[in-house]
Amino acid sequence: MSVITLTTDFGHGSPYAAAMKAVILRINPAAQIVDITHNIPPQDIHQGAVVLDDLSEWFPEGTIHVAVVDPEVGTDRAIVYAQIGKQQYIAPDNGLLCYLAVRNPPERLIRLENPEYWLHPVSSTFHGRDIMAPVAARLSLGLEPEKLGPRLERLSRPQWPEVRSSPTRVEGMVVAIDGFGNLITNITVGALAGRPTDYRACVVCSIYETWGIYHTYAERPRGTLIALIGSSGRLELAIVGDNAAKRLGIQVGTPVVVAWE
Amino acid sequence: MSVITLTTDFGHGSPYAAAMKAVILRINPAAQIVDITHNIPPQDIHQGAVVLDDLSEWFPEGTIHVAVVDPEVGTDRAIVYAQIGKQQYIAPDNGLLCYLAVRNPPERLIRLENPEYWLHPVSSTFHGRDIMAPVAARLSLGLEPEKLGPRLERLSRPQWPEVRSSPTRVEGMVVAIDGFGNLITNITVGALAGRPTDYRACVVCSIYETWGIYHTYAERPRGTLIALIGSSGRLELAIVGDNAAKRLGIQVGTPVVVAWE
Amino acid sequence: MSVITLTTDFGHGSPYAAAMKAVILRINPAAQIVDITHNIPPQDIHQGAVVLDDLSEWFPEGTIHVAVVDPEVGTDRAIVYAQIGKQQYIAPDNGLLCYLAVRNPPERLIRLENPEYWLHPVSSTFHGRDIMAPVAARLSLGLEPEKLGPRLERLSRPQWPEVRSSPTRVEGMVVAIDGFGNLITNITVGALAGRPTDYRACVVCSIYETWGIYHTYAERPRGTLIALIGSSGRLELAIVGDNAAKRLGIQVGTPVVVAWE
Repeated sequence: MSVITLTTDFGHGSPYAAAMKAVILRINPAAQIVDITHNIPPQDIHQGAVVLDDLSEWFPEGTIHVAVVDPEVGTDRAIVYAQIGKQQYIAPDNGLLCYLAVRNPPERLIRLENPEYWLHPVSSTFHGRDIMAPVAARLSLGLEPEKLGPRLERLSRPQWPEVRSSPTRVEGMVVAIDGFGNLITNITVGALAGRPTDYRACVVCSIYETWGIYHTYAERPRGTLIALIGSSGRLELAIVGDNAAKRLGIQVGTPVVVAWE
Repeated sequence: MSVITLTTDFGHGSPYAAAMKAVILRINPAAQIVDITHNIPPQDIHQGAVVLDDLSEWFPEGTIHVAVVDPEVGTDRAIVYAQIGKQQYIAPDNGLLCYLAVRNPPERLIRLENPEYWLHPVSSTFHGRDIMAPVAARLSLGLEPEKLGPRLERLSRPQWPEVRSSPTRVEGMVVAIDGFGNLITNITVGALAGRPTDYRACVVCSIYETWGIYHTYAERPRGTLIALIGSSGRLELAIVGDNAAKRLGIQVGTPVVVAWE
Repeated sequence: MSVITLTTDFGHGSPYAAAMKAVILRINPAAQIVDITHNIPPQDIHQGAVVLDDLSEWFPEGTIHVAVVDPEVGTDRAIVYAQIGKQQYIAPDNGLLCYLAVRNPPERLIRLENPEYWLHPVSSTFHGRDIMAPVAARLSLGLEPEKLGPRLERLSRPQWPEVRSSPTRVEGMVVAIDGFGNLITNITVGALAGRPTDYRACVVCSIYETWGIYHTYAERPRGTLIALIGSSGRLELAIVGDNAAKRLGIQVGTPVVVAWE
């Protein structure tokens, strides 16, 4: 039973996701297809990269993750196959895989060039359906990735802001907002290792600040702004029992600083 | 083929649901996973309880229903396994199962305490992924529920308003609004048994009223406010061909009264 | 492995879709159920027909497509089984299948009248769950469609506006807006066959116009209004890197004209 996941910016309920599933099932009717999300904001490669980084490694070994956030579809941007750890990925080479690849260098990296495994005619605007879906389905049936095209040296890597650390500060930003309005940052538990997390840690986001980094919402009273390490190992800001993003008017991209005196 | 359902307040398209599916598939790659909904309003245990009550018994015997509306995650609130009728449930013990249990007392009730079947390390904020998902997957492979922990005497039961009946009135409230804007109430067909449903029944919701309880929308002209027994056996209010919730400005919690002279 | 798809106006995250899946899995636990979409606007049969026309033929041969946009549920409108090409359909006979049937006349057309294959008691408001879902599940297990009821002569066909062609103009309208805000029209690549698609083709939508019909978004600079043939073979209008529907304030139903001098 092979698992194929989909991560896209099509919007939930988009028939485009169904088109990809249709193509996959035509080739491998027994594929177990799982939606990671179709709610990546349109053409927001960075948020796609964050979701893949957080989610994909939870899946069974050998899972094939197809990611379609592809504003450059129709140009000569590459589509790649990557094996990273025990997971497999198919995505445009536009940065979607770069957080994964930084943590864990790809073991195999191939540029999809062999049209034998694609759906024809290939449209100019929907390579998710015509190239990525059929390739994923064929891989799930045992196709050797080497047949997809030539080796690729390295993934392209956008100039995204990185977390900066100094002896008294760690500086990052909000990279996602979940369905509860919690503000998820790019500051990971690793970036905070060895630093005090008690009242000496001051977490600042926009004009708001809070002291101490907690483990669970229930440690503080309802309505309190709280910083904690969330379930993906990322620093997050939440208001207990409320929607922090709406209440504080915070959006993805807002700087977050942890400071110690 | 074991069916596992998910009912959560994560919001549609949330990667958190995908994380639970990933954990389930890692343990049982052949599980048939069905989303009941991820659109329970954040932390709204009552609406979660209503959805489980309406939906879960439609599934095949032995289905394992995992429900995650869990504002007290990280406290000592229990997580329970319950067998109710032919269905199985895993949920925080916060009221999510109480409507089901009132109609049909649980045959087995177990408190999840044995960490052997959990994912480690267990996060403090996402027991859906780290405790409930792996337990559901192992049950679907045949694990005996008794191994999950000690027997529990009874489910906790929140103080939610109940339907009140008198010779001339039945009083309830709107408990859900569906995608058409229909107002679903907690007044069931059972609560109306033996009462006239013709023009003598006056149904009042906020400042609006209508006479008679119908069987289908098509019995009345477009634009008419109509009361009828919906497909889940609940009294509902609808505007034929329109969105009653928006048109009338009604929200969940609004009182609904059926009165006879 | 039989594939059953669902196309409805229930709204994403609606438990009604879960109820249909529950009924299907009770009868055929091995069914592969795929959501095409649940985001058809409430009771908008036309948009349902467009989605089925664009999507259903991508699925494996023999797939059973269940479509529930059913404002007349509870009246004597028929429910039909249709075999169209290599695909099978179950839907109310209200126009949902008419675009498919125009392109490709149904090979078998049957009116669902035999209650033996339905769920009882049949509700008056949810035939998707009580009639269409169980029939689809039984067909997926090999039930002969002829057993469902008598042959039907033809599908009913609403008076929807058709694309009109003259030597200098093709006139249609926006029939869907995708998650990127692209404006999808009912003018197909076929309707434009043999016409110039270069700068001589002027595409007009509301007060906006653009010249030339392209193949991919990347051919024009960001922020440009562009006409192109989309991945379903339909003329669409897009703003490169932006949301045309929001930016221009265009809705489904807006006329679109392609004109040549």
